[in-house]
Amino acid sequence: MSMNLSQKLIQSHLVSGSLEPGCPIEIKIDQTLAQDGTGTLVMLELEALGLSKIKTEVSAQYVDHNLLQTDFKNADDHLFLQSACRKFGLWFSRPGNGVSHPVHMACFDIPGKTLLGADSHTCAAGSMGMLAIGAGGLQVAMAIAGVPFALKMPKVLGIKLEGGLPPWVSAKDIILEMLRRRTVKGCVNKVVEYYGPGLANLTAMDRHVIANMGQEMGTTASVFPADKAVRAFLKQQHRESDFVEMKADEGASYDEHDTINLSNLEPLIACPSSPDKVVSVREVVGRPIYQSYIGSSANPGLRDFTIPARIVSGRRIADDVSFDINPTSRQLLEELSRSGDLTKLLEAGARLHQTGCGGCIGMGQAPATGRISLRTVPRNFPGRSGTAEDKVYLCSPETATASALKGVITDPRDLDMDYPSFQEPEYLPDIRPLLQPPQEISVTVELIKGPNIKPLPNFDKLPKVLIGPLLLKTGDNVSTDEILPAGAEILPLRSNIPAISRYTFSRIDESFYQRAIKLSGDCFVVGGENYGQGSSREHAAVSSRFLGVRCIIAKSMARIHRRNLINFGVLPLLFENLNDYDRLEQGAILEIDEPIVQLKSSNSVKLLIKSSGESIKLRSDLSKDEFEVLEVGGMINQVREKHLNTGK
Amino acid sequence: MSMNLSQKLIQSHLVSGSLEPGCPIEIKIDQTLAQDGTGTLVMLELEALGLSKIKTEVSAQYVDHNLLQTDFKNADDHLFLQSACRKFGLWFSRPGNGVSHPVHMACFDIPGKTLLGADSHTCAAGSMGMLAIGAGGLQVAMAIAGVPFALKMPKVLGIKLEGGLPPWVSAKDIILEMLRRRTVKGCVNKVVEYYGPGLANLTAMDRHVIANMGQEMGTTASVFPADKAVRAFLKQQHRESDFVEMKADEGASYDEHDTINLSNLEPLIACPSSPDKVVSVREVVGRPIYQSYIGSSANPGLRDFTIPARIVSGRRIADDVSFDINPTSRQLLEELSRSGDLTKLLEAGARLHQTGCGGCIGMGQAPATGRISLRTVPRNFPGRSGTAEDKVYLCSPETATASALKGVITDPRDLDMDYPSFQEPEYLPDIRPLLQPPQEISVTVELIKGPNIKPLPNFDKLPKVLIGPLLLKTGDNVSTDEILPAGAEILPLRSNIPAISRYTFSRIDESFYQRAIKLSGDCFVVGGENYGQGSSREHAAVSSRFLGVRCIIAKSMARIHRRNLINFGVLPLLFENLNDYDRLEQGAILEIDEPIVQLKSSNSVKLLIKSSGESIKLRSDLSKDEFEVLEVGGMINQVREKHLNTGK
Repeated sequence: MSMNLSQKLIQSHLVSGSLEPGCPIEIKIDQTLAQDGTGTLVMLELEALGLSKIKTEVSAQYVDHNLLQTDFKNADDHLFLQSACRKFGLWFSRPGNGVSHPVHMACFDIPGKTLLGADSHTCAAGSMGMLAIGAGGLQVAMAIAGVPFALKMPKVLGIKLEGGLPPWVSAKDIILEMLRRRTVKGCVNKVVEYYGPGLANLTAMDRHVIANMGQEMGTTASVFPADKAVRAFLKQQHRESDFVEMKADEGASYDEHDTINLSNLEPLIACPSSPDKVVSVREVVGRPIYQSYIGSSANPGLRDFTIPARIVSGRRIADDVSFDINPTSRQLLEELSRSGDLTKLLEAGARLHQTGCGGCIGMGQAPATGRISLRTVPRNFPGRSGTAEDKVYLCSPETATASALKGVITDPRDLDMDYPSFQEPEYLPDIRPLLQPPQEISVTVELIKGPNIKPLPNFDKLPKVLIGPLLLKTGDNVSTDEILPAGAEILPLRSNIPAISRYTFSRIDESFYQRAIKLSGDCFVVGGENYGQGSSREHAAVSSRFLGVRCIIAKSMARIHRRNLINFGVLPLLFENLNDYDRLEQGAILEIDEPIVQLKSSNSVKLLIKSSGESIKLRSDLSKDEFEVLEVGGMINQVREKHLNTGK
Repeated sequence: MSMNLSQKLIQSHLVSGSLEPGCPIEIKIDQTLAQDGTGTLVMLELEALGLSKIKTEVSAQYVDHNLLQTDFKNADDHLFLQSACRKFGLWFSRPGNGVSHPVHMACFDIPGKTLLGADSHTCAAGSMGMLAIGAGGLQVAMAIAGVPFALKMPKVLGIKLEGGLPPWVSAKDIILEMLRRRTVKGCVNKVVEYYGPGLANLTAMDRHVIANMGQEMGTTASVFPADKAVRAFLKQQHRESDFVEMKADEGASYDEHDTINLSNLEPLIACPSSPDKVVSVREVVGRPIYQSYIGSSANPGLRDFTIPARIVSGRRIADDVSFDINPTSRQLLEELSRSGDLTKLLEAGARLHQTGCGGCIGMGQAPATGRISLRTVPRNFPGRSGTAEDKVYLCSPETATASALKGVITDPRDLDMDYPSFQEPEYLPDIRPLLQPPQEISVTVELIKGPNIKPLPNFDKLPKVLIGPLLLKTGDNVSTDEILPAGAEILPLRSNIPAISRYTFSRIDESFYQRAIKLSGDCFVVGGENYGQGSSREHAAVSSRFLGVRCIIAKSMARIHRRNLINFGVLPLLFENLNDYDRLEQGAILEIDEPIVQLKSSNSVKLLIKSSGESIKLRSDLSKDEFEVLEVGGMINQVREKHLNTGK
């Protein structure tokens, strides 16, 4: 049977299950990554698991999120992560090296390998012919410990790319076109595989842009073939020998299929405040902007900074615009400096920021009240920029730069100039020597824990009768940024669950924390469609559980958050009848009798609304493995029980 | 009569008074500057004064402090400042252009001129043969409105520099030697004037290093001659025509005198947590460090970054060190990029931060708990880094860089290499086109005020009987960083007095705010020697007054804070007998009957301790002008009364 590339990647790593869509499968994980916002929990979990040495081929820990250090907490976390890498045998990438995804791509991506990352944009590595999946920290910790990764066999959506991009249109516009067509929930439980003649002129880094923002459609993974563009990238990184050709078999088919003719694309832009509110730039030109922001893992390539530099060369950005340049990696910054393009940006009036995730994760660069910010980042969920009621638009570097020059949203094709040329250099500076390699493992390495680094709380099993109020009812597409915000104030609490839990649901309902504390018992939360989309942060699940949320009932759920809930013993249930969503009012007392018993027998439960005596049927889509995790109150309990059972 | 240069500068701007030390004088102000941390109040004050157009030759507003933008507040302040510059006719320097002092030096410093700045390090401009003085924002606002600046004629301390600096010893070591000799309170009410053959090999930027940190000794101003080094600097900035030779008359004398033989200096370092805890680096070598920090207005020159780049060239900084590079200006960053020295720093593992004040003002880069930070900044007051109980050492770029390479405090002379050479370029990039010049004044310019920008509170006059508790008793050398901290959490509240007041004295006594709110009435604070040293922030005075502090009693006071207290109607009194400090206990109820009447008759008051019935004699050193300000409850009241009297 001829297979598409996604199937081949899965097949070659399959530990259990079959390639039938929906079938529970387990796959071997070759590589892992984590960033500092998720990594401290990963390390605390590795400590709780009693790991002595990593079992993967490569595991790397990056520091790219919590870089501002407004007090001791972030700096302490960096030292903790460094010490944990020494203890467990991971690569450590120090602050200043850059964003995990492009740095991992430069240093470690190998076609044909699997990568599990504690960051939702891990899917970016699909640009290199890999199967790369974002997951919660605990699952990454398990993968580091050698446990296969469990998921349902996804459907594969084939996207055939035809034609070639016109001037002033770039990779970002391709993924914005995908979001326009598919929406933020259009690719849940799907792998999106790109192929076709349109790939010929897309570099590996162009593909990274597309693969990265696959996450914004809910994809399990984005997959590209490993062809001569990938070979050229590996050569540029001084490791051409890592190249392996990867492609779909002749005559392979896809579960679903679509075509994009690149020649027909024009500059696109996602309006506030969802990545799928995509329109043509033409439709919104002329709106005054406060900020134009270049950077993030969604546009991390040398061309994404060089093109803006060459657009502004010899010009001056508008007086009223903050033109924020966020280099994504040390390698990129070195090259921009060497080529003279950095100087062009500075001379035009740009602000150069520290290498890393920066304002994309709300770590600085928040826009002014009521003002428009144009960003090349992947997400514009409400408030993610750090400013409440923000107006963040997502666009290409070309559109962001043209708008910075004019002071208003501008179609870059309207600039009175030729489209600047860009040629990838044959070689880039070798960045790997600046990562700290795994050391000879020594049990004497002490974990360095500052006063803000607290152990994981213990969570008990689901009670026999789950009863409590519906403490919060939310709408559709609630992101993990709304369940537990990031930003400069909250991110530094990532190693301290009791402290960070204060901010749970604060973007939706400021009173939630106080109400949960007052209740001090079990409760329910109801969501609409696509509950928990966005960032992979397991803190969104852990803090919910810490405040007593034992069950989430939704119309549908995003993959990573759903699994994070299970990992920490929170029951994810779905409405059998979507209209029942309207029957549940915030404040109602709900009850599920013997949830484990009911689920075991029928994969569904009866939810009793105490006030009316009515009941609602809820279904579960738990796999056997997931059910076992839930039954014992979460994955850590499961591992502990297994260890105890084996006499440890 | 032959005069020293300080006297000549004052004489040429004298509006009233005589050059007799201690005599109240008024001087004409040619130029002003403010930064964003102080400037928002300056602009609110200009608005309160009803100014239509600036009266100075040059007034410039910089944005260099509040750059992190963790929410809307800082960004809103930047827009407010920009709109105020347009309304009142100031130059505006956008975020990313750099720290006020080196940028002002490059763009506006002219030998022979006076400069008043709402930043304590304004004295840096003394390196250019100017009389440059730091002051509270309200006085800068008055200067912008054309009001002469009042002070007491300072004594002039002449420092003769002889010999030449050995390799690995640089300008920072000269000012550290001064601090070793003079301490943080050794130059209050003095101008420090440098001269002699040792100047020959000190560039204008070397002198900036020395002049800048004059503030750390409490100086009114630092003064250097304008000679060929200054001419070379102006040429480098494309404005050699601004050069005017300035020097002391032949045979001029000084009120006090000292000599430093540069040939005898060695690398010095100020230990935690005061700039005058200076020892030889030799005495502290080997202590492990967490951070090495290059930047700030205390070491802002191209050489201060190029020498580190050439030291680390081809080497790698220690794995455990965060090597933080904070470019001081856009001009510097452009030149570092152009010369290739930026690449050397990056290749060695440095973290490059946004251009501006950064961690020097606690705006990011806080060190880890209990770890040592080496910094080229001017101050290491407790907690200023953002980390409580920090361990910040002040040193030269050479010492900081050597230590970054070794991971422990290192005497740079112990590096196994030749001292790198550095030659100032003949020209640097012209930065002035990136500042926004004053516009044609239009009354239609609206001030842009975000929701955090609140009007100044109204403050009433001193009561007839001043009675209240001694709410806080502090020790010696309390800095304005301890009276009202800066840092990333608090700085964004600079335009909102009620909000920022919550942090008053929080570094000394976390309960102060709550106790003041509970009291909700008049109270006293007692200080030791040199009360209010450090930053010029008038918020330290305004927030004290806002919380009911009506009188500060101290052994001695720092110049700028003392005047800020007067400006906002807080009575600054001194112990007649220093031993009486010990007789006052926190919590005691104190009373001054008819303070204004007593001061008017004898420049002293009787302080009654209610519990014991004892009394203490306190003296005042108020000038006539200052007394008049206090009498009406502060400078804004004074101006308002004058306006009302003239029928406005």
